[in-house]
Amino acid sequence: MIENPFYTPEVQGAYHLHSLGGFDLEEGGHIPDLQMAYATYGELNEAKDNAVLIPTWFSGTHATWEQVYIGPGRALDPSRWFIVVVNQIGNGLCTSPHNADGDIAMSGFPHVRIGDDVRAQQQLAAELFGIERWALVVGGSMGAQQTYEWAVRFPERVLRAAPIAGTAQNTPHDFLFTQTLMDAITSDPGWNGGEYRSHTEVADGLRRHADIWAVLGLSTEFWKTEFWRTIELPDVTWSTFEEFQERFVRAVFLAMDPNALLSMAWKWQRGDVARHTGGDLAAALGRITAKTFVMPIDEDMFFPPRDCAAEQALVPGSELRVLPSIAGHFGLFGFEKTYLDEVDRNLGELLETPV
Amino acid sequence: MIENPFYTPEVQGAYHLHSLGGFDLEEGGHIPDLQMAYATYGELNEAKDNAVLIPTWFSGTHATWEQVYIGPGRALDPSRWFIVVVNQIGNGLCTSPHNADGDIAMSGFPHVRIGDDVRAQQQLAAELFGIERWALVVGGSMGAQQTYEWAVRFPERVLRAAPIAGTAQNTPHDFLFTQTLMDAITSDPGWNGGEYRSHTEVADGLRRHADIWAVLGLSTEFWKTEFWRTIELPDVTWSTFEEFQERFVRAVFLAMDPNALLSMAWKWQRGDVARHTGGDLAAALGRITAKTFVMPIDEDMFFPPRDCAAEQALVPGSELRVLPSIAGHFGLFGFEKTYLDEVDRNLGELLETPV
Repeated sequence: MIENPFYTPEVQGAYHLHSLGGFDLEEGGHIPDLQMAYATYGELNEAKDNAVLIPTWFSGTHATWEQVYIGPGRALDPSRWFIVVVNQIGNGLCTSPHNADGDIAMSGFPHVRIGDDVRAQQQLAAELFGIERWALVVGGSMGAQQTYEWAVRFPERVLRAAPIAGTAQNTPHDFLFTQTLMDAITSDPGWNGGEYRSHTEVADGLRRHADIWAVLGLSTEFWKTEFWRTIELPDVTWSTFEEFQERFVRAVFLAMDPNALLSMAWKWQRGDVARHTGGDLAAALGRITAKTFVMPIDEDMFFPPRDCAAEQALVPGSELRVLPSIAGHFGLFGFEKTYLDEVDRNLGELLETPV
Repeated sequence: MIENPFYTPEVQGAYHLHSLGGFDLEEGGHIPDLQMAYATYGELNEAKDNAVLIPTWFSGTHATWEQVYIGPGRALDPSRWFIVVVNQIGNGLCTSPHNADGDIAMSGFPHVRIGDDVRAQQQLAAELFGIERWALVVGGSMGAQQTYEWAVRFPERVLRAAPIAGTAQNTPHDFLFTQTLMDAITSDPGWNGGEYRSHTEVADGLRRHADIWAVLGLSTEFWKTEFWRTIELPDVTWSTFEEFQERFVRAVFLAMDPNALLSMAWKWQRGDVARHTGGDLAAALGRITAKTFVMPIDEDMFFPPRDCAAEQALVPGSELRVLPSIAGHFGLFGFEKTYLDEVDRNLGELLETPV
């Protein structure tokens, strides 16, 4: 168990832990006591038909969804919907390499699949809330991977789906991109095969990891127009792009646990709903019965709209809704009102669509 | 002096060396005996008005131009044009960290600017051939940077200019991207502050460097469509994208000298014609009198067409000619006949344009 303040409620806001007990993983590993970190907003109604599930993205937690997407007057309004944000296995809040004990601590942490997360979320929802089906599953990036996995694996449990800035089947380009992120960490001698004593020993690797994110996670236009000048954080400022890179992008990732990032990255690389259909993506997406809005971000450099559109074409009755963000993939952080308004407009319309 | 077979005529084809003697660099350094590596194709006519200059790109040499762009029946036909391809300072063939002696060897190699290359090329052309002006300067990527530099610095010496897949003023995104390429090398303990004994000691860093190139240098669509299946090299095959990555992209960069790549990358990051006009890019590009075709590649992930179009709009009388290549920036290698035909069509038209 390594102490890391980033994963405390002081930084992440309140969340609950729920133990799923022993959990067998699709790759053959086993987590003896899988703790799932989740947060809920609103109240589950008696019919249990107002439940919304939000799985989280790479390096993300429930906190961003709470701060950026959920609130009164928004599409995801807790006065109407019972919103359950479930953190990813391995994300630092759930059972993860740095907080696990025994055989599965640190370098011993087993490989986790997108499907493991979805099964864990299903078990959690059944055990805690008796939820049979979701009015909506919505997630960004790796959250979109989980959204697709839900809609393909449990079609009868998902009435509506909104994968944002992510794919059902990871692309080779994404695989290679993610590998560079991983190699940035594992090439740091401080990583030590996963057996560091503090994430700060891997600062160089985390910094290089962040630097690659700056190139692909944002967009050429974000940097060209100096959009970062409009982004504000408490207690920190920047007046050059180098300062923004140091004080925002690097600062975000330097706080995180390297093994957590590696666990999620490995999972991301292998997201693929076609595992359910012997590799046939069309057959897998053809299973989806949820009313689905596929929502790529126009400036996304590694989940480009055309990749998402090709998948959307395979989802029966689905619609393509491209979101505008000069911040590219990191548009997910909600820097722009125009982006958030468009998300809300689409999610609102989707939630009003009878199914 | 480190031996590296990649930089021999056996690999690069024939080239000449010409010493410019002692050469003062814009950043304050000095190269006591600057050897320029160049190759020529065709004959200079008596009027000396058929001379075409081609500066080289990052990690590139004259060889690619010879093999891919120059030939009978092509726009760059040696039966009509006297074509001079001049390698970049620091590219491994010209005076470079690994082949220099004394104070400027290896980690002592001074910083070189795009402007240094252009001045060196001008001196070489004057000393060897008495060329006063170029019928055309054309280059890709860092060759485009040098093309712009020529047209701004020596407007009267450049009748036509064709910057391909490159910019006059490097962008912040490009700066950050290039930095990740550099950090991949310098983070390898084998690099040893630039004082390795063989480039093979930096194999891990060169491999990570290549891996980042695979993500940005090609395109999402290149990988998605498995375009690599159509690429052929002698004596090597691939049947998966991982094999192509290993046997093509990595193989290319693993042969190179790390310090040479770092020298070029530093130069690339700082390409900026506005240095001539106190930071005013419009004023700098406004100086250009060459008939200019700006030729970005449609799928280029770090010199996107819109960045090139914004500069083109500042060049008097210029035209934007977007080239098609699913290979993105690496389309420069000429994998596609459609791309090469379009280059030839545009260069042919440009060369026929009276100036």
